[in-house]
Parts: sequence; C-alpha cells; structure tokens
Amino acid sequence: MLKFDVLTVGNAIVDIISRCQDQFLIDNAIAKGAMNLIDAERAEKLYALMGPAIEASGGSAGNTAAGIANFGGKAAYFGKVANDQLGEIFIHDIRAQGVHFETTPKETFPPTARSMIFVTDDGERSMNTYLGACVELGPEDVEEDVVAASKVTYFEGYLWDPPRAKQAILDCARIAHAHGREMSMTLSDSFCVGRYRAEFLDLMQSGTVDIVFANRQEALSLYETEDFELALANIARDCKLAAVTMSEEGAVILKGGERIYVEASKIDKLVDTTGAGDLFAAGFLYGYTQGRDLADCGKLGCLSAGIVIQQIGPRPSGSLSEAAKGAGLI
Amino acid sequence: MLKFDVLTVGNAIVDIISRCQDQFLIDNAIAKGAMNLIDAERAEKLYALMGPAIEASGGSAGNTAAGIANFGGKAAYFGKVANDQLGEIFIHDIRAQGVHFETTPKETFPPTARSMIFVTDDGERSMNTYLGACVELGPEDVEEDVVAASKVTYFEGYLWDPPRAKQAILDCARIAHAHGREMSMTLSDSFCVGRYRAEFLDLMQSGTVDIVFANRQEALSLYETEDFELALANIARDCKLAAVTMSEEGAVILKGGERIYVEASKIDKLVDTTGAGDLFAAGFLYGYTQGRDLADCGKLGCLSAGIVIQQIGPRPSGSLSEAAKGAGLI
Repeated sequence: MLKFDVLTVGNAIVDIISRCQDQFLIDNAIAKGAMNLIDAERAEKLYALMGPAIEASGGSAGNTAAGIANFGGKAAYFGKVANDQLGEIFIHDIRAQGVHFETTPKETFPPTARSMIFVTDDGERSMNTYLGACVELGPEDVEEDVVAASKVTYFEGYLWDPPRAKQAILDCARIAHAHGREMSMTLSDSFCVGRYRAEFLDLMQSGTVDIVFANRQEALSLYETEDFELALANIARDCKLAAVTMSEEGAVILKGGERIYVEASKIDKLVDTTGAGDLFAAGFLYGYTQGRDLADCGKLGCLSAGIVIQQIGPRPSGSLSEAAKGAGLI
Repeated sequence: MLKFDVLTVGNAIVDIISRCQDQFLIDNAIAKGAMNLIDAERAEKLYALMGPAIEASGGSAGNTAAGIANFGGKAAYFGKVANDQLGEIFIHDIRAQGVHFETTPKETFPPTARSMIFVTDDGERSMNTYLGACVELGPEDVEEDVVAASKVTYFEGYLWDPPRAKQAILDCARIAHAHGREMSMTLSDSFCVGRYRAEFLDLMQSGTVDIVFANRQEALSLYETEDFELALANIARDCKLAAVTMSEEGAVILKGGERIYVEASKIDKLVDTTGAGDLFAAGFLYGYTQGRDLADCGKLGCLSAGIVIQQIGPRPSGSLSEAAKGAGLI
C-alpha cells in the first residue's frame, strides 16, 4: 500500500476574510471572483480599507490536501511559509488535519503569504494575494520519497506565478511518472490561465499532467473561446482525464469520448464560495485514489464543494467523511 | 456632546478557535466554560494538540468596544499588543470597526496574547489564555483625554491578572469621576472572581465602580453562596446599577430596590457562546449611553448576545444596528 493517496503542491497562504459590498470592489479595482496578485504596498493599502476580518489557513492546494485528509485519505503537502506567526498558524492547521507537511520554512522576510478575501452578498469571493514567502518555493523543496510514494501529485496553476515553483513541479512530474504515479493540476483561475495559457496547454498535451481540474471560465479561457462545448471537446482531447465544474450545474467528467455529468449538491444557503474548486478536487481525488468509479468521484467532489460554500472560510470545519457517510457515498 | 460613549479597557487577545469533544477537555484538564490562564509552555503543548482552527480578534473588553461601535456608538479601547502579526491583526480589526485604539504596541517579546478557545458540541467555549504582551499594560497607557471624554469607562475583571493594569484602572476611575463620568466593570469569570473576590467587592463598595456586569456563576462566586436570590440582593446593595445575565433565562437589571427582568433573545441554533457576556455589555452600554431606559438597555444586550452565540467567533460579523432596527429596538 502506498504511503500517500495524494500529494498537493501550492502557494501556502493564510486567508484574511471580510464581507464587503460590490461597490467596494469597483472602487478599489478588484476583479470580482478572481485571484488578484498584489504587492506589499497594495496589500497594506487594501488592508487599511478592509473591514474587521477573520483569519483561516488557505491556499488552493493546501485546502485540497486538508479536504482529502478530512475525508480520511492520506495526504501530503509542499508549500513555503516564513518563520513567523502566520506561518505557525498555517503549519499548525494543515498538520492538525493530519496532512504530512515538512517543507522547511524560510526566514522572516518576506513574510508568510496572505490573501485578503472579500466576500460579497452573493457569496462570491474576490481574492487579493500577496505571495510573500511563496516566491521561494523551489526544486530543493521536493521531497522525492513523498512524490514517489503518492498515488497522485496535484498542483495549482497558481504556482506559475512565483519564479521557481514550476521547476519543482517538473521535478515532481519526472519522479511521479518514473514511479508509475499520476500528475494532476487545477487551472486555478481564468486570469491565471490567461497568463500561462501556452505553458498549461503544453503541460497537458505533453502528458506532464494526466488529470486536469477546471471550472467553466478557466476552460473557456484556456481555449480562448466562448463556446463551452468546444472547450470541453478540446480539454477531452488534450488530457487523459478532466473534471470541469459548472457552479450550480454541477460538474462534467471527461475521459476520452466519455462524458459523465454530476449534479451539484443541494445547499441551504450560499455563504462564501472560497474553496469550492479546491474541495471539489479533494472529494474527486479522494474517491479516485480509493478506486471509486468516476461518477462517484464527481459526487464526492460536489458533496465537499457544497459543504464548504455554506460556511465562511476555505476548509470545512466539520467532518467530510461523516457527511459522505450520511449521503451514502462511502 | 461627549467624544466617546464608552471607553473599554482589557487584555488585547487574538482568539484561536477550534471545536473539540468534551473528553478532550477532561483529558487535558481544561475547566469547561472557564478562562484558564496558561503559560507559554502549556500554550505550545495545547496548540500541538488542538485541531485545525480559525483566528479572530477577541479580548472581552475589545469585543464590547467593537460591539458598541457596531451598534453605531462611539467607542474607544485601551489594551496592549506586541509589534507582531497577531498584534497587527488585533489593531486592524478594532480600528476597522471604528473604535479609537491608540495604545502603543510594545516590542516583539512577549508576543501578542492569544486564547485557544475550544468549543464543544453544546456550544460552550473553554478558553486557554496566554497573556503575552498584556502583562505590560500600565498607567502610562491611560489616555487621560479619552477617559475624560467618555460617558462610561468599562473594564474587565480579567485585568487583575496582569501585574500593572489595575493601577491603570484606578487612574481611569479617578479621572472619570473627576469629570462626572461613570465607571463600569464585568466580573469576567467565576474563577477570576475567586482570585480577586475581596478586591472586586472593594471596587464596588467603595464606589470606584458604578455599574457591574456579571453572570449567574460570577454573582454566586462573588458572595460565596449557592443562593442566587441572596447574591442578587447583595449585588444590588453593593453597587448603583448591575446587570446579571442568566443564559437562556435572559437577564435581570438591579438598581436599588428595583428589579427588571429581560427575556433572552430567541435563537435558531446555539453555535458558540464566545463573546455572549461581552456583547450583552455592548448592547446594554450602547443603550445606556444613548439615554434609553433600563429595560431597553437589557433588551439591546440580549439581542446582541443572541446574535453572537449563533456564529463562530466573539464579534458579530453582521450589523448590530440593522438587527436592532429589525427588532424595533432603535
């Protein structure tokens, strides 16, 4: 039996979460629903304008690792924090969830990354991320034995923003494939796809990545089209397996010529979409590495995404394995 | 018109909040429902045992100041943080709520105080507080003009734990009374009352404090009795005005021979009792400094306490003034 079901790699970020009105986003030129990259100066300015907030460990792939562990899967994580209080919080939270996390923290400057997340009344989240310590993640942080011992290694497209993380990912892919494991990525964000379209397509078409996660906007952006059917046909052609989420319309799983549609979970109230995609990937990959069929993987993804959007913050506070048992999925 | 309705003074703390089972409290000798003071070594040990958490600015009197400002009142706060990331978070959150907060942060060691709060399935919170930077709050932190310009200066009984804060409070009382203002305190916690019973009684009986907030357990502890009626009679004798909260039975306001009973707010689901007493005081003092009658003050207190216990964390994320308007109270 392998030591880990899923290793995830990403920008290690603490979220700072507050509510705001739509006008605030307009006034401050924050692209709604997107991940806006900001520098230290803008981070300071925006924080001064932000209302009272709460803090929670986040980071897309970190949320996915925490979700997989919450389901009962064996998860590991690579990501870079600084040796500071936010870094301590990040390390505590992911380890407390049972995730293997041993990436060496860097010294205190730049500090641990934070994302100021503004949640509007419609539940949509708009992120403003200062990458801080994440810029130092590099090939030296790849724990080769962990990659070799993980059924799937999953990473964020966001890792193409810092300078050296992509090299770490290419090393992971080499090690993983040498051990017969699979590589997976999320396209992360439609603007991120816009920044790295050619490289992401190459990762898929070259077989560096086996399993791709995307939402509708990211799939459209990847192929620079407004035709979702066309985007789905292209993504099915360009990778072995893909799962494309469609918000309240659920998800579609693409494998060769096969398409499996999965309904979204019924929810009582949309509170905060932060972490929806991350938790879809968590549920899907948990099911996938347990050998479940693709329809069940999709259902597990929709279940955990539906749970996280009914709370504030990107990692479910309750038990996902209990929820999945309650829904008859495990 | 006075510049401030209410000045509050307290231990400036960031809360670290997680759920746990009752057995965890027993296994780790945490007094349920209480504020347990811990040192740095135990803080580290408990944090290692704690599950994934979220962080939110707290501190009893800080929560009260934030609540008063959230109602639309003019609030100020004295409290000591360190020059570190948790200190920045505390400063941001209280100022973002519109509270005047200008206490000079101390240097980086000891760090900003934190309280590890374990919330059990019944919604009860059990706090484990490392006082850190709070030990340095002293008379030099009293902004005399702010005290003089505040209708009421309110402080936590918890301030008797650090060594020099009580001297700051006695200075506040002298200044406030010289300007014809009122002093108010909360008894904070039944164990805290046990530590400082004689001093708290002296504060009341000497007229240093005019308005006292307590819950049932604190009132019983203050007079070392199991007879709640006797405790109420004593507290009415020992201070000019008191408000005693009784959880789901609401509150009773005592002024001389007069007793006014106020019903608790109806709630849908008890999530986390953290901040209940702090927000009762916020609603009461907001009404009081707006010149409302005592029954309305009590209703405003029960309203805001009822709101905060239906969410995670000690400061309501929504608008208290909107809620009070919705309830026909303002």
